[in-house]
Amino acid sequence: MNSLRIGLAGLGTVGGGLAAILQKNGDWVASRLGRPVSIQTALVRDLSKKRGLAPDSTIRLTTDPSDIVEDPDIDIVVELMGGIDAPKDLITRALNAGKHVVTANKALLAEQGQELFHLASEKGLGLYFEAGVAGGVPIVQTLKETLACNRISRLLGILNGTANFVLSQMTSQGVEFDEALAHAQRLGYAEADPTLDIDGGDAAHKLCLLIRLAYGVHFPYEKLHVQGVRAVTRQDIAIAREFGYRIKLIAQVNEVDGSLEAGVFPALVHHTYLLARVGGNYNAARIEGDCVGPVMLHGQGAGALPTASSVLADIMALARANQAPDNTGFADWRLPEARIMNHEDARAEHYFRFTVDDRTGVMAAIAQALADNNISIAQAVQRGKAMERCVPIVFLTHESSISDVDRAVRAIDAMDFIKEPTVAFRIL
Amino acid sequence: MNSLRIGLAGLGTVGGGLAAILQKNGDWVASRLGRPVSIQTALVRDLSKKRGLAPDSTIRLTTDPSDIVEDPDIDIVVELMGGIDAPKDLITRALNAGKHVVTANKALLAEQGQELFHLASEKGLGLYFEAGVAGGVPIVQTLKETLACNRISRLLGILNGTANFVLSQMTSQGVEFDEALAHAQRLGYAEADPTLDIDGGDAAHKLCLLIRLAYGVHFPYEKLHVQGVRAVTRQDIAIAREFGYRIKLIAQVNEVDGSLEAGVFPALVHHTYLLARVGGNYNAARIEGDCVGPVMLHGQGAGALPTASSVLADIMALARANQAPDNTGFADWRLPEARIMNHEDARAEHYFRFTVDDRTGVMAAIAQALADNNISIAQAVQRGKAMERCVPIVFLTHESSISDVDRAVRAIDAMDFIKEPTVAFRIL
Repeated sequence: MNSLRIGLAGLGTVGGGLAAILQKNGDWVASRLGRPVSIQTALVRDLSKKRGLAPDSTIRLTTDPSDIVEDPDIDIVVELMGGIDAPKDLITRALNAGKHVVTANKALLAEQGQELFHLASEKGLGLYFEAGVAGGVPIVQTLKETLACNRISRLLGILNGTANFVLSQMTSQGVEFDEALAHAQRLGYAEADPTLDIDGGDAAHKLCLLIRLAYGVHFPYEKLHVQGVRAVTRQDIAIAREFGYRIKLIAQVNEVDGSLEAGVFPALVHHTYLLARVGGNYNAARIEGDCVGPVMLHGQGAGALPTASSVLADIMALARANQAPDNTGFADWRLPEARIMNHEDARAEHYFRFTVDDRTGVMAAIAQALADNNISIAQAVQRGKAMERCVPIVFLTHESSISDVDRAVRAIDAMDFIKEPTVAFRIL
Repeated sequence: MNSLRIGLAGLGTVGGGLAAILQKNGDWVASRLGRPVSIQTALVRDLSKKRGLAPDSTIRLTTDPSDIVEDPDIDIVVELMGGIDAPKDLITRALNAGKHVVTANKALLAEQGQELFHLASEKGLGLYFEAGVAGGVPIVQTLKETLACNRISRLLGILNGTANFVLSQMTSQGVEFDEALAHAQRLGYAEADPTLDIDGGDAAHKLCLLIRLAYGVHFPYEKLHVQGVRAVTRQDIAIAREFGYRIKLIAQVNEVDGSLEAGVFPALVHHTYLLARVGGNYNAARIEGDCVGPVMLHGQGAGALPTASSVLADIMALARANQAPDNTGFADWRLPEARIMNHEDARAEHYFRFTVDDRTGVMAAIAQALADNNISIAQAVQRGKAMERCVPIVFLTHESSISDVDRAVRAIDAMDFIKEPTVAFRIL
């Protein structure tokens, strides 16, 4: 079947990631879709700029948007330019030309999405934006489809990896905001102008899109209450910690008596909550549905490949529209038989508990039997209680094969000081 | 538009949940889909049995499968009978009659799915099974669609809520396996014959389905290495805990040099991992993709409404097939404006940090100002250091309105002992 042809606007971090995934996993994508996906043309600002494209890349570069939106060979336009006006113009032209659109542009969709969704609806075309919210976290599709029958009482999350990274640094390193931000900038996690990330605007854009998906209403972006992380000090983080809390930048919408209360703000989150454990540049969202209960999604919130992975998910979903239902996730239902690894060759760290008669030389005999079977010990504990004959000896090991583990257990269980069959569990 | 008509086989826990959701959220489902969904006919074993259906229910009950699979008015057959042979026969007849099928039957699909997927593919029909794996956790669709471009290096999860509940009980209550299981049975979390849950068979069925979705291969169920939780003792849980680990029943598939190593087994999971925090009857899965990185999904693994929520997600997905792309998640792109709550009326617990001149009566003055504004104190700490003039006083409050919080802060910041503007954060 013919290749699905993409017109790509913007060959920066995410656009380059999309090209890299298609280069690396193109065959895999084709096996799922029944046809290959290729980038036909990419719109760039500077033709002479060096890019990390593969030497055999067939992507045609252009500086003229018409080469994308007016090319009848292009099926789907992917907008990864950034900004508001230029991408809006490009998306409008693409939809008018009858092309599906995939975008990661949350600012545009949050601030002016109504108009674009109207046009897409009139034309019966796709305007997909999985990559626009929380990078690789599969939240857009989950809200649109898997949780679609639920009334959502509350949705909250950590939707900006940069702000979360800065707070995580302040927490783990005990540094002040300015130092943590400078560190994030050195690592490339924060931009030179970090305003949108640090002051909550980016999380607010994403929240705006999630409110639409969850509640089916338009919540004007400018009506969100937005407070960033600049107000958080090392001192507050330390005091909150004493009470068992972490401070996180939270985006939240709550339904109260039929009205929505929504905003972005730093908040104390108890350390026992999964959200408190979301570290570094990760994102997470907790969705509370009236049928499904609480659902939590967690993954990388940004970065070339995670975000491009979501862009490609939208491309593949649009390619599947108007085809027969996709039951197996692959074009051919005839799945080949798995190449199955010999169970005994699998390798893992292990926990061993030996129940032994407490006498001299037992620990040495067990340790020797483990060594004879190539099993290296990471931690050990023997806790003999006076007056008790049977004591447990516990070893945690480095990685070893199941066959070595089985052989060692058989050898040790044959020893006369062993009082009960040995317990062995893997350690993840 | 005409109602989408369901033929429901099995009106037990999950089938009853489906009827309840359509009763409760039918309008919401219709607003997303553009047409209502109704259960036309339900196949039951005993017509005289009392069921919790709504008094105005129009569901026709029958004991004859033909009333479902041969009724030309029925669009989608939902199979929630349990067992292997009867549901296989029903699904086969439904597909042959040209009807889409939604099922939660992991045992059938794991053991004999190839044949049914073949038939569905021949007929160009849907055979969907989101509810078959981990109840309300949106993992099937995420693997089929959102993560579709990824090569999966590893997938692991807690896929059986009963086994997880028993292990959680053993951990939190310090009881042995038999007692924890009996408790789970009293609460209805474990069946009278708990074999499939406790010995890992149910998790293995689910793993089998996930391997297909993630790797596109058929991994025969009987080739999985399966070990349940009976071998886990209170003693092992206590010792593992000393080393910082929890013991969980893990289903895992790993790709090693092009071969798959897969099975179900109890394993030690370090307490800092999110999987270690999955408690009670929850399920979770961690998927490691080569583009997206690690993604974690967490939610309720069983129960009437969570599972029925996933059944309805499949029904809605099939209803949308061969329609225009669904951009907003709602049939009408014209989303109404949100009813927005007055920000000042929102209520939350708060963290306050007051920076004060350390003198007599300060704590009393602040506490009085909080009380004057209806703010009730939950915890307080003042940590004065000798020789320091400026000390922090911290209050954690019970829930109060934002307007009361703002008013209290204004009043207190006007007091002459306040040295820096007061910090106030919400507590989640």
